[in-house]
Amino acid sequence: MSASFDILGIGNAIVDVIARADESLLGRLALAKGSMTLVDTARAESIYAAMGSGTESSGGSAANSCAAAASIGARVAFIGQVANDQLGQVFGHDIRAAGVAFDTPAAAGGPPTARCLILVTPDAQRTMCTYLGACVNLAEAAIVPERVQASRVTYLEGYLFDPPAAQAAFRKAAGLAHQAGRLVALALSDPFCVDRHRAAFRTLVADEVDILFANEAEILSLYQADRFEDALAAVRAETRVACLTRSEKGSVVVTPEQVIEIAAEPARVVDTTGAGDAYAAGFLAGYTAGRALAACGKMAAIAAAEAISHVGARPQADLRALVARI
Amino acid sequence: MSASFDILGIGNAIVDVIARADESLLGRLALAKGSMTLVDTARAESIYAAMGSGTESSGGSAANSCAAAASIGARVAFIGQVANDQLGQVFGHDIRAAGVAFDTPAAAGGPPTARCLILVTPDAQRTMCTYLGACVNLAEAAIVPERVQASRVTYLEGYLFDPPAAQAAFRKAAGLAHQAGRLVALALSDPFCVDRHRAAFRTLVADEVDILFANEAEILSLYQADRFEDALAAVRAETRVACLTRSEKGSVVVTPEQVIEIAAEPARVVDTTGAGDAYAAGFLAGYTAGRALAACGKMAAIAAAEAISHVGARPQADLRALVARI
Repeated sequence: MSASFDILGIGNAIVDVIARADESLLGRLALAKGSMTLVDTARAESIYAAMGSGTESSGGSAANSCAAAASIGARVAFIGQVANDQLGQVFGHDIRAAGVAFDTPAAAGGPPTARCLILVTPDAQRTMCTYLGACVNLAEAAIVPERVQASRVTYLEGYLFDPPAAQAAFRKAAGLAHQAGRLVALALSDPFCVDRHRAAFRTLVADEVDILFANEAEILSLYQADRFEDALAAVRAETRVACLTRSEKGSVVVTPEQVIEIAAEPARVVDTTGAGDAYAAGFLAGYTAGRALAACGKMAAIAAAEAISHVGARPQADLRALVARI
Repeated sequence: MSASFDILGIGNAIVDVIARADESLLGRLALAKGSMTLVDTARAESIYAAMGSGTESSGGSAANSCAAAASIGARVAFIGQVANDQLGQVFGHDIRAAGVAFDTPAAAGGPPTARCLILVTPDAQRTMCTYLGACVNLAEAAIVPERVQASRVTYLEGYLFDPPAAQAAFRKAAGLAHQAGRLVALALSDPFCVDRHRAAFRTLVADEVDILFANEAEILSLYQADRFEDALAAVRAETRVACLTRSEKGSVVVTPEQVIEIAAEPARVVDTTGAGDAYAAGFLAGYTAGRALAACGKMAAIAAAEAISHVGARPQADLRALVARI
């Protein structure tokens, strides 16, 4: 069946608040550098009060991937829950302006649109504190079957396992995709997130995931492995394709038949926020366009290099032009 | 009398929405490049819908100057009107995080916090559309006399003449400052703004302004002069100090006794948003610290060069370190 969309992303609809921070601030706030911590309203307020002047921009892991994939030229849709407030309007505007179809109705009441407080330290590492807000109300009803059925790949972010109601939405989407003969992709998102939901992720990866994205810490956590090689062997037995990213060491695209090493693209690293999201975008844009796996990995590396070369997670350059040389 | 603050800024409290734009979009929206246009809710919505994905950051001309002056080390306070909404919280957080005292109560009802839609074209020029929102309710009551009396310089942005109620607040502040033996500084803000309020500005400059900031287009508009030299002669007869900025040609600091030429600092121009605001900040930080006029002008040029070297109006570098060489 022909598809209306190459990629349907489903994830937390979040507005990022990005500020530069000293290492010492992470210590005072007891935050583990490079991680994503879930925070409640009170903790979000106290962290925000301690943060410097910020810039706001639309974020969310799968949403970032959707914006980047659309910038490459893929046909993309997104499902995620915002509230009917100013930040929800910002999120909706930005993802539509990126060329992504987005029509999940904003929640009329309940908590406000989600925010992710991002502290960028001088080493360009990002440390995130997420207030899930309206995302906790993403419900099964938001998963429009026709949209899943009409998308080549349904791409889910692991962070979506945190808001409890979203897990059901997550499983519904995966089920619908497979019933329609479509693919399911999953990004593991964060090692602590994997830790929180390891059993569920293991089942999902073994039973439902066709394309998996994980960085080194995440794949080690998933299989509780000590060595990268052991985790690679484990994932290889379970998924059609796994993309394992290793920052400046590049990435490895793994299938039951092949292990393809992809070099990292050179980049002046300013802010690593969104690097993994951009990687997934590049890979899926290539994959759904029928490109060879090595080319998909190269497109992924180019998109990731663009993402880390500036503050903020969404692309600022014309990704279509950047990947055209592949 | 000793002062608690070096600078008290009074201006529109605005959150900027910045997006890159092609020249052709300005044409389709019928916007004059480099200008600031006031827009109502409907026009703001249609322009926002036509804009690309944006980033939000606190703005407002005088507020930007306050943040930059505080970054240099001046003791700074700000008065401006936000609404009790998400963007108002962002504005309040950011200006306080910059080290500026800000305690104007947020308006409980009425229009939302002001937004400025900023289109940055490939030539780094910025074109602004301002929805004044809650700023139209800045009232005389917001001008706390003790704060004006305790500040060496009360610094007013010309844009404040647009919301009608704010003009009274503006005059009250100027009057209080002079009664307390303090100085009044004014930025002319925009040639169209000068056009809208020329008679009022002329009276104000002649009678109330000690330190005037204007770019070439603004000072020509104020005196309806054709030649820069004529405008310079006119302003020289009316103010204690006038700082006339000329983009890459540098600036001229004019007093009844002297005309001091200040070279522009070298900069890679990315986005000119906030250049004039940063210039005023550098000058006033120097002036209130008792520096010689040439040094004040140099500090102004350094702050302006920093502002145009990145997207967004507020400083991203440590301005105190940058001006330390003066």
